[in-house]
Amino acid sequence: MLTDHYELTMISAALHDGTADRQCVFEVFARRLPPGRRYGVVAGTARLLDHLRNFRFDSDEIDFLARQRIVNTETASWLESFKFQGDISGYQEGELFFPNSPILTVSGSFAECVVLETLALSVLNHDSAVAAAAARMVTAAKGRPLIEMGSRRTHEESAVAAARAAYLAGFASTSNLAAGLRYGIPTAGTAAHAFTLLHDDEQAAFASQVLTLGHETTLLVDTYDITQGIRNAIEVAGPHLRAIRIDSGDLSVLAAQSRALLDELGAPDVKIIVSGDMDEYSIAALRAEPVDAYGAGTAVVTGSGAPTAGLVYKLVEVQGRPVVKRSENKRTVGGRKTAVRRHKPTGTAIEEVVVSQGTPAHQPNDRLLQRRFVAGGEQLPDVPTLQQSRDHLRDCLISIPWEGLKLSVGDPAIPVIQE
Amino acid sequence: MLTDHYELTMISAALHDGTADRQCVFEVFARRLPPGRRYGVVAGTARLLDHLRNFRFDSDEIDFLARQRIVNTETASWLESFKFQGDISGYQEGELFFPNSPILTVSGSFAECVVLETLALSVLNHDSAVAAAAARMVTAAKGRPLIEMGSRRTHEESAVAAARAAYLAGFASTSNLAAGLRYGIPTAGTAAHAFTLLHDDEQAAFASQVLTLGHETTLLVDTYDITQGIRNAIEVAGPHLRAIRIDSGDLSVLAAQSRALLDELGAPDVKIIVSGDMDEYSIAALRAEPVDAYGAGTAVVTGSGAPTAGLVYKLVEVQGRPVVKRSENKRTVGGRKTAVRRHKPTGTAIEEVVVSQGTPAHQPNDRLLQRRFVAGGEQLPDVPTLQQSRDHLRDCLISIPWEGLKLSVGDPAIPVIQE
Repeated sequence: MLTDHYELTMISAALHDGTADRQCVFEVFARRLPPGRRYGVVAGTARLLDHLRNFRFDSDEIDFLARQRIVNTETASWLESFKFQGDISGYQEGELFFPNSPILTVSGSFAECVVLETLALSVLNHDSAVAAAAARMVTAAKGRPLIEMGSRRTHEESAVAAARAAYLAGFASTSNLAAGLRYGIPTAGTAAHAFTLLHDDEQAAFASQVLTLGHETTLLVDTYDITQGIRNAIEVAGPHLRAIRIDSGDLSVLAAQSRALLDELGAPDVKIIVSGDMDEYSIAALRAEPVDAYGAGTAVVTGSGAPTAGLVYKLVEVQGRPVVKRSENKRTVGGRKTAVRRHKPTGTAIEEVVVSQGTPAHQPNDRLLQRRFVAGGEQLPDVPTLQQSRDHLRDCLISIPWEGLKLSVGDPAIPVIQE
Repeated sequence: MLTDHYELTMISAALHDGTADRQCVFEVFARRLPPGRRYGVVAGTARLLDHLRNFRFDSDEIDFLARQRIVNTETASWLESFKFQGDISGYQEGELFFPNSPILTVSGSFAECVVLETLALSVLNHDSAVAAAAARMVTAAKGRPLIEMGSRRTHEESAVAAARAAYLAGFASTSNLAAGLRYGIPTAGTAAHAFTLLHDDEQAAFASQVLTLGHETTLLVDTYDITQGIRNAIEVAGPHLRAIRIDSGDLSVLAAQSRALLDELGAPDVKIIVSGDMDEYSIAALRAEPVDAYGAGTAVVTGSGAPTAGLVYKLVEVQGRPVVKRSENKRTVGGRKTAVRRHKPTGTAIEEVVVSQGTPAHQPNDRLLQRRFVAGGEQLPDVPTLQQSRDHLRDCLISIPWEGLKLSVGDPAIPVIQE
């Protein structure tokens, strides 16, 4: 039922007039990247394939649809036996995309393809938006680990998907336990200000935390006074404490002061973790400071200004005939696309070539961007794992021209040539 | 498991040191509204209460937590028997809020309250962000109906909650079928461009849609040429067609042209629905045009620039003693708060008065803002229905000073006085 009313009314009309079985090709692509962004990151494909296995309409749902007169009897019986039997191919998760990159291709009968539109877009738009923001933060952090801790700033289920997308993009860990359980992502976290406030004083809170969690823990030192908090932390935990966390104030000043104080207290190995409304810009701004790890929340789970990836799901081919919508300000190219990315012999990407109803002329250092995920309704075995997708994105980000990694507003890192 | 790692490590330490049972009060509030916003809208409370009934840790989850050494044996056994047994009160859904309004108060033992932090904030931050954006759109539409059609732009489960929040805020209907089934929200929708492209020509598509769905349907007229599309629509469906939809182009120009053409074709009762990246500003900009209804998508489900409501969950009282975090740039007032809204005899709201550990001196036209939702872990029977919350918000928006409804950047509609 994670779909739109109009998908079913379209199916009703198409079943009635006999067009529901016409063989169609739908493609997912972005007309443009969010303002100023230089690349998009494909994320969510594996989650979509998981959903697809359970995408059915049960009898309660069909009763509801019939009672509300959203579907007629013919459509109700079609929904009852619905199982997607078409093909799906696309860019793998962790692949970069640019305007008009055909990141997912769904083919089959009109009815079985159109009913997937809303779900496919929901999953890909959300996860890709988070992954793109997260990838920019990973670049900004220059190798320092990032912890995703934004669950509380987004819908409770988005939070789990966001943790996955951030990990795919190179985050080291997440605070979200459901993401740990479902996807095997490392989880992290120690204590909030409430834990300190619960106790009679800060020393008591720190002592309790170290007693239960050991020295490999992070003490939050900014509940009262940061300088005193650091002194208390080292007094209680000694120089083998893993880290302190600062969650407020001018982090660039505080990080330097805290490092100096920790060194002075004979605790040069105690790490400094900073958090509190971090985005790619504030992460980059702390590059010169003695920060060992970042916690990012709101900005990563909400796509850092671009909460949706702008992906659309468009019919491009009907029974082998390219179709195209022509109206004000929008133009799509008809026909099923094949996409390759061209590279210099050094491995640097030059451009993406997208050909309608054909295949790009082969050149050395071309890489085919599409893989088959589903054939005849059955998922193929070689869908990349989350870890493989994470590695793939890291490699892709190395392959684009260096300007493509700049945080500033700019054009897409490479052009997409439509042939 | 929709919670954060650190909630459980805090509980471990607190169980070990004996503080886990200390009676605590936590409050949910926003330090500030999103930039320029004049009010917030409470949404999600009923969803949170639904979650609370099922908020348990099953044996697979506890095994995972133990295996990952996130919890020790003592905590594992606490989680096994966990059931919230405290009290919850708060502002009802549809209530307005301002900086420092105590919109939710959770009291009980430290452990049972802190474990709800992430879930409570996820639900309230998401739903309140959508509801606030949606309320601004409803104001901008000046009584013309709004259809929520943003499911595809947000996570598949956020989409359902967003449809609910938009309906609470006054939207007329949603495209999301799961929201129709779960919450009884009216659903709407007819056809996409794909349906037209599927057919041999536009007339065939329109004829099929009218044949199956009847004249009470909306024909999408901008797949090829809008003028011809409207001519085709009236030729096929006649003057008793319910509506046409335009999804692209300069909507102010096209609405006026389309109205003139429909009138010329003898179809003055055919309504005009516009959609395509509508937000509160573009909705307001069409006020002078002959638009009968709006479809809003991306902007409503992503909070129109403010995708999270900025709500935090803070410990304010431990065993009757107010507690407060004092560090750089953040200041909370300790103690359990009681809040009233003061009004002029005419009913116009003047201010909100929030008193710590006491009750505001009663004045005529005061309204107590907090209700009891849960007592001793049991949900009380009088949680408002979605329809009641929707009506309540409509009344609240009438009660604030008229400047509070302006779309432009401004201060909160009324001040919050902390005593």
